[in-house]
Amino acid sequence: MAERFANRGLLGELAAEFAGTLILILFGLGVVAQVVGGGIGDHDSIAWAWGLAVVLGVYTASRVSGAHLNPAVTVALAVFKGFSWRKVLPYTLAQTLGAFLAALIVRWNYSEVLAKVDPGHTIKTQGVFSTLPGNGTLPVHMWGGFRDQIIGTAILLFLILAVTDVRNSAPLANLAPFIVGLIVVAIGMAWGTNAGYAINPARDFAPRLASFLTGYGGAWRDQYGDLYFWVPIVAPVIGGIIGAGLYQLLVDRFLPRAGAPEPGRTPPPADYEAAAASR
Amino acid sequence: MAERFANRGLLGELAAEFAGTLILILFGLGVVAQVVGGGIGDHDSIAWAWGLAVVLGVYTASRVSGAHLNPAVTVALAVFKGFSWRKVLPYTLAQTLGAFLAALIVRWNYSEVLAKVDPGHTIKTQGVFSTLPGNGTLPVHMWGGFRDQIIGTAILLFLILAVTDVRNSAPLANLAPFIVGLIVVAIGMAWGTNAGYAINPARDFAPRLASFLTGYGGAWRDQYGDLYFWVPIVAPVIGGIIGAGLYQLLVDRFLPRAGAPEPGRTPPPADYEAAAASR
Amino acid sequence: MAERFANRGLLGELAAEFAGTLILILFGLGVVAQVVGGGIGDHDSIAWAWGLAVVLGVYTASRVSGAHLNPAVTVALAVFKGFSWRKVLPYTLAQTLGAFLAALIVRWNYSEVLAKVDPGHTIKTQGVFSTLPGNGTLPVHMWGGFRDQIIGTAILLFLILAVTDVRNSAPLANLAPFIVGLIVVAIGMAWGTNAGYAINPARDFAPRLASFLTGYGGAWRDQYGDLYFWVPIVAPVIGGIIGAGLYQLLVDRFLPRAGAPEPGRTPPPADYEAAAASR
Amino acid sequence: MAERFANRGLLGELAAEFAGTLILILFGLGVVAQVVGGGIGDHDSIAWAWGLAVVLGVYTASRVSGAHLNPAVTVALAVFKGFSWRKVLPYTLAQTLGAFLAALIVRWNYSEVLAKVDPGHTIKTQGVFSTLPGNGTLPVHMWGGFRDQIIGTAILLFLILAVTDVRNSAPLANLAPFIVGLIVVAIGMAWGTNAGYAINPARDFAPRLASFLTGYGGAWRDQYGDLYFWVPIVAPVIGGIIGAGLYQLLVDRFLPRAGAPEPGRTPPPADYEAAAASR
Repeated sequence: MAERFANRGLLGELAAEFAGTLILILFGLGVVAQVVGGGIGDHDSIAWAWGLAVVLGVYTASRVSGAHLNPAVTVALAVFKGFSWRKVLPYTLAQTLGAFLAALIVRWNYSEVLAKVDPGHTIKTQGVFSTLPGNGTLPVHMWGGFRDQIIGTAILLFLILAVTDVRNSAPLANLAPFIVGLIVVAIGMAWGTNAGYAINPARDFAPRLASFLTGYGGAWRDQYGDLYFWVPIVAPVIGGIIGAGLYQLLVDRFLPRAGAPEPGRTPPPADYEAAAASR
Repeated sequence: MAERFANRGLLGELAAEFAGTLILILFGLGVVAQVVGGGIGDHDSIAWAWGLAVVLGVYTASRVSGAHLNPAVTVALAVFKGFSWRKVLPYTLAQTLGAFLAALIVRWNYSEVLAKVDPGHTIKTQGVFSTLPGNGTLPVHMWGGFRDQIIGTAILLFLILAVTDVRNSAPLANLAPFIVGLIVVAIGMAWGTNAGYAINPARDFAPRLASFLTGYGGAWRDQYGDLYFWVPIVAPVIGGIIGAGLYQLLVDRFLPRAGAPEPGRTPPPADYEAAAASR
Repeated sequence: MAERFANRGLLGELAAEFAGTLILILFGLGVVAQVVGGGIGDHDSIAWAWGLAVVLGVYTASRVSGAHLNPAVTVALAVFKGFSWRKVLPYTLAQTLGAFLAALIVRWNYSEVLAKVDPGHTIKTQGVFSTLPGNGTLPVHMWGGFRDQIIGTAILLFLILAVTDVRNSAPLANLAPFIVGLIVVAIGMAWGTNAGYAINPARDFAPRLASFLTGYGGAWRDQYGDLYFWVPIVAPVIGGIIGAGLYQLLVDRFLPRAGAPEPGRTPPPADYEAAAASR
Repeated sequence: MAERFANRGLLGELAAEFAGTLILILFGLGVVAQVVGGGIGDHDSIAWAWGLAVVLGVYTASRVSGAHLNPAVTVALAVFKGFSWRKVLPYTLAQTLGAFLAALIVRWNYSEVLAKVDPGHTIKTQGVFSTLPGNGTLPVHMWGGFRDQIIGTAILLFLILAVTDVRNSAPLANLAPFIVGLIVVAIGMAWGTNAGYAINPARDFAPRLASFLTGYGGAWRDQYGDLYFWVPIVAPVIGGIIGAGLYQLLVDRFLPRAGAPEPGRTPPPADYEAAAASR
């Protein structure tokens, strides 16, 4: 999804990344604030709303910028898909800025209910903004979170490549953003125990900073006092590269090359569309 | 989605807005009545059913009227998308009338269970029909609701424009109504704490009036005794304009113009459809 | 969806209605048995599974028979859409037979857990098979259920016509069955309080009979001792005709006629597909 | 979905089956580990995440291998759809290997929380990896599970054939994987009481072996001490054949033959696409 948007101009791309990540984080932090601060919803609504946040953020940005919305995606596309390395830092900054503004809006709008359930702005509601090992309560430490974030982001990137790869069976009719969102719903339901599924450095760091600047003095450390903030930055970048590489290894190289005849092979098989068209 | 339906005739458009908003509110109030009155379901089912209500209301009305179903949408489209200002008031009235009739039907059908759980028809079940700051229980006051409704409706309009904009990556195959509904699911899950996500003046005012006329004497005030009914009317209109304007600013102006070559640029990049077609 | 399948032969159509309704009821009763008998799931899973049951039943039968799966649908299509009156009874019998077999399969597979939670096979687990006013516990009587079933089935038929009408904005790419299922999810979440949303005579009567024949001696009466079984047969048929008629009145007559130029009007406006194709 | 992928080369097909089943089980076991080990989520999230696991596993593998991901699917396609019998064993091994690796990853990542809630690695958390009759707590024995797995897998195969059959009304735009996943959501909600809906020999056996090798000494027996592991292997294969056969019997033979005129019949009726195109 990378270079084909290059002709829009970098300013537009950065605006799109900013806007898409803003949308992502407005819903992502919003649902946790609603559950933790307002008592409305549960872990199911958190998983669904984060996934829908992705759906809607991707629809916002996909035509202009390719809708990375996540530095781990940007880096992995630079490593494997030819996305320009010169754009990696600008994209990352735009994503971070969007997430930061969204975090401030959530912080502001939910100030009354957060003050009510956690007047000291402690680790109790830190999870509205940034992640903690074992979500702050389960017996998982920093390195358990590190391991988990590598695996979780590897799954994310493997699947983003799978479901947006037009040589594979990517959904047509501009519905890939919907399926991409379902990846994050599933990760939230199945891979959110050990580290709150940050799987996105911008999603975690920018709101953490925003919370720190607005009264959450303990934002950088976990419940054991360890400096934790770097885990959901470093591990997703590593995991994303691993996942994207595994997709290349296990699936991509077995797919037909676009536009090129497959030597010694019969023409591409009929897919659903063709079969339907010929009936 | 606006002017292209103009040739259907205003009567048809108003009938469609009436019918679509009727469907929206039959489900929207119905689910809250079911949860509050019948004890069947929870906040998750409320969020999903409101979103599905939008999906189905939009499918009902979209070809004939463009399926605004919400005066905040109608006004924002008039401001930014050339929707005829002369139709703003008729559309608003049709939406309000549809919502009013739906509210009476829900009031009638759920009369037994509402009488059981709240014989005095007090603020306890007022939320079946209209919204309250902090949903009547959380420590949020009128101006917290006002702020929240501006933000929530800004998100709504920003995203409605994003996911229905064919120059962006709007879903094809007539599936935009499904994605539009998911916007409202996500808003319900993440932005429903402070003011019950009215985000629609007709959705809130008409059922409030219907409840007032059928035994809810306190319908116009919130739990603190403040006159509240105007908040979910005024704030959504303001928020909708802000959100639609931000979409113009951050995304729309970076999109290719339809039908016009892009000077100094290469042709539009391949999208999923084209890539798939050429494989 | 009716006459265009007539050339398949009546035997195939009846087999499809039988198979589709079998699928519908295998999931529909299965989920209630799982929640009531196994304690696995809740009202949300009941609403979703019934809706998915519709999605899958419709995909099973739609090409061959049109996938009515419901006598209330069959009758309404005969009244308003030219479905052959001579087929109404055969379709209804096939639907009833499919539902009956499915009910026996559920009764058999869930026999252990039903025997555990309700050894006497009383009204306590009657709701696995057939509906009761107020779901057997809320203060709703027979006529409240009657009223509710008219309204609920009117909503169902109104929306089935809306989302499958190609002159309206019906989903393309053979995705209408998915959206039809969402109608039933929404009805389950919002219109299931007073009468358990039978909205289908075959869905209610056939399992009721199956339960009666396998140990549920009180199957024909409600918790007040009233003979209730006729309500979810008669009311849905009435409601379906009303709902389909309202769609004709409020929406259908304002839609463009297929294949005919619209006198004095400009050509049909661009829809999403056309707009996308021209960019 | 079988033979049309044969030209990709067996190595690619096995890699795709491996990768797709890996994805399936990473989510499938992950969600149960999250609910049982982390207390995050519930039966609803289990049903949804298993279904989304199918969606994403099928998108991963469908173009290269046809995305069986399940020996019961592979066998049924060999029996009824001409899938090469010589590939049945290789496919099964690839599926099993993918499931085995995924189980080890889940076992590793969730080691802390599993050790916390079940230090002895007993039957209490066995269900994270493999299935038990009555999910280990309900009054269902081995043969109740056997019966249930035949029925459940029959439903699965019947519906997989229905929703991917382009002569029927299979979803277009490469969205069949989404609907296939919904089949498994519905089975999880409605047919998961008696035997935890393994409906897939590889899904059950490989993680059972992985758990046995990593501390779950009682993995092969159920809560009554019966040797149970063979049930979710044998019954799904039988059930899959039955279900696929019933689809042939009840639906497939009434569908039009692709490419052949239908003697004595009018041309195929307009479907949604054609009707829409002609308006």
